[in-house]
Amino acid sequence: MPKHKFQTRLDAYQKRVNTALNKYLPADDPPEHNLAQAIRYSVISGGKRIRPAMVYAAGEAMGVATDLMDIPACAVEMIHAYSLIHDDLPAMDDDDLRRGQPTCHKAFDEATAILAGDALQALAYEILAKDDHKELTPQHRIKMLSLLTEASGAHGMAGGQAVDLASVGKILTLEQLEHMHQLKTGALIRASILLGGMCQQDISQQQMEILNNYSLCIGLSFQIQDDILDVIGDTATLGKPQGSDEEQGKPTFPAIIGLEESQQLALEQHRLALKTLEPLGEKADSLRELSAYIVERRY
Amino acid sequence: MPKHKFQTRLDAYQKRVNTALNKYLPADDPPEHNLAQAIRYSVISGGKRIRPAMVYAAGEAMGVATDLMDIPACAVEMIHAYSLIHDDLPAMDDDDLRRGQPTCHKAFDEATAILAGDALQALAYEILAKDDHKELTPQHRIKMLSLLTEASGAHGMAGGQAVDLASVGKILTLEQLEHMHQLKTGALIRASILLGGMCQQDISQQQMEILNNYSLCIGLSFQIQDDILDVIGDTATLGKPQGSDEEQGKPTFPAIIGLEESQQLALEQHRLALKTLEPLGEKADSLRELSAYIVERRY
Repeated sequence: MPKHKFQTRLDAYQKRVNTALNKYLPADDPPEHNLAQAIRYSVISGGKRIRPAMVYAAGEAMGVATDLMDIPACAVEMIHAYSLIHDDLPAMDDDDLRRGQPTCHKAFDEATAILAGDALQALAYEILAKDDHKELTPQHRIKMLSLLTEASGAHGMAGGQAVDLASVGKILTLEQLEHMHQLKTGALIRASILLGGMCQQDISQQQMEILNNYSLCIGLSFQIQDDILDVIGDTATLGKPQGSDEEQGKPTFPAIIGLEESQQLALEQHRLALKTLEPLGEKADSLRELSAYIVERRY
Repeated sequence: MPKHKFQTRLDAYQKRVNTALNKYLPADDPPEHNLAQAIRYSVISGGKRIRPAMVYAAGEAMGVATDLMDIPACAVEMIHAYSLIHDDLPAMDDDDLRRGQPTCHKAFDEATAILAGDALQALAYEILAKDDHKELTPQHRIKMLSLLTEASGAHGMAGGQAVDLASVGKILTLEQLEHMHQLKTGALIRASILLGGMCQQDISQQQMEILNNYSLCIGLSFQIQDDILDVIGDTATLGKPQGSDEEQGKPTFPAIIGLEESQQLALEQHRLALKTLEPLGEKADSLRELSAYIVERRY
């Protein structure tokens, strides 16, 4: 398969954010526990870093210096990683494997996994609050924290996971499914895109609206493509058993509207995303490539 | 038993913070889940509100207008409540009762309890970030967020709980026990006192240092008194079975240095706290009464 156009950017973003994560994650544990080890195990062990890539791509489109985005990029990845640790717990999705590796509570224990997730959530906000780039005023960082905390809470990601758990084995309408994902994954994707934009302190209201609309399109196409890959992907590439959504009785786009219509819906969102970006001209190419990557990726 | 001098203040603080909590906690759930209900159940169901009282008492000593402290007071109580929800989980302390009521995972289920705690942690920071009191500049609120997130994370409360879990059934030295509590409960108590002080934007470095030293004294005396009450208190007043620490094999001050020496140590910390406050004169009476209350309380 030829390398996707976005892949070169993604590789660079991954490298950046991995270096930064290594810097901001807790380094050592006291002799009594292994919280830092469990946190590092869960965050460093892999992942596409697609949310950090969203921060960088959005910021690039707004002309932001890349190093200004390292901390917001780390913050969204920490929130994502903490949510995976908790989602995998026996009381939640009860997953033993994540990215082909034992999940945090399997590699350590449940208590450590709960606490590692808790500490990681706090750390995401802590690094944003402590960010000392002079280019980011406290006023801007407060707004970023306001956005990220809201995206993570009961009216965002945590609420979405609650809806997801309540939906297992149920038949949802397309609207209900979209709403669930809008909370569960969409809120953090939106925050990632907007945080990138907000690193440009002079960003206009109109530009923020463009980013907002764009984020809604890619949030949806991202989830549809995830569901599609669960049907057509293979276990080795996905890092989790193919068909696991269906097996767990999770409602998916292909299950509700069929595979082909799901693919059409994802492409439609991609087209909408491109249309949304038109007023930004060439400088938004990073975001165009990102949107294409989301619907064309194979894992 | 005669009413403690601090009780009148505490009653007023409790009333204030309960009204504010009611305002800032999520109100309603969508039909799919009951996250808001689980959060309200856990937060509203009781509790002494001693951490909010610390915010108010410290702020009063610094001449802060009371309404400016409602949001920091709510934030520390939310962090405390989230930590209790998670600490009670089967994988952690496995407690069925809290304040005489079924714990969150018993009243709801484990998944809901995990998510309620997660959402509550995010909400604590969210209300601080969104606080729109003009008297609190973004610069101040960023510092408050920085303090509170650090107190909650791997080098604070979450780390302390990890040490606590690892200590069950072990014999600790007095130093190790103090260190564990300094993280587990001390970090949030320190944050509560300092947040109250930080609501006074003109607070001097020297005043912050006084509050910091004071918070270390009451953090320790608070924990010692908790351990003492677990030995001498009765189940009805405590809201949890008397002697439960010992039964669970948790290291306590009375177990390590004996009951009488524990009481002496608590009183010594109280005396130290009073000495620390001397430069502040009469205006620090709220903090003096708070320190006395901590070592003299019976529940």
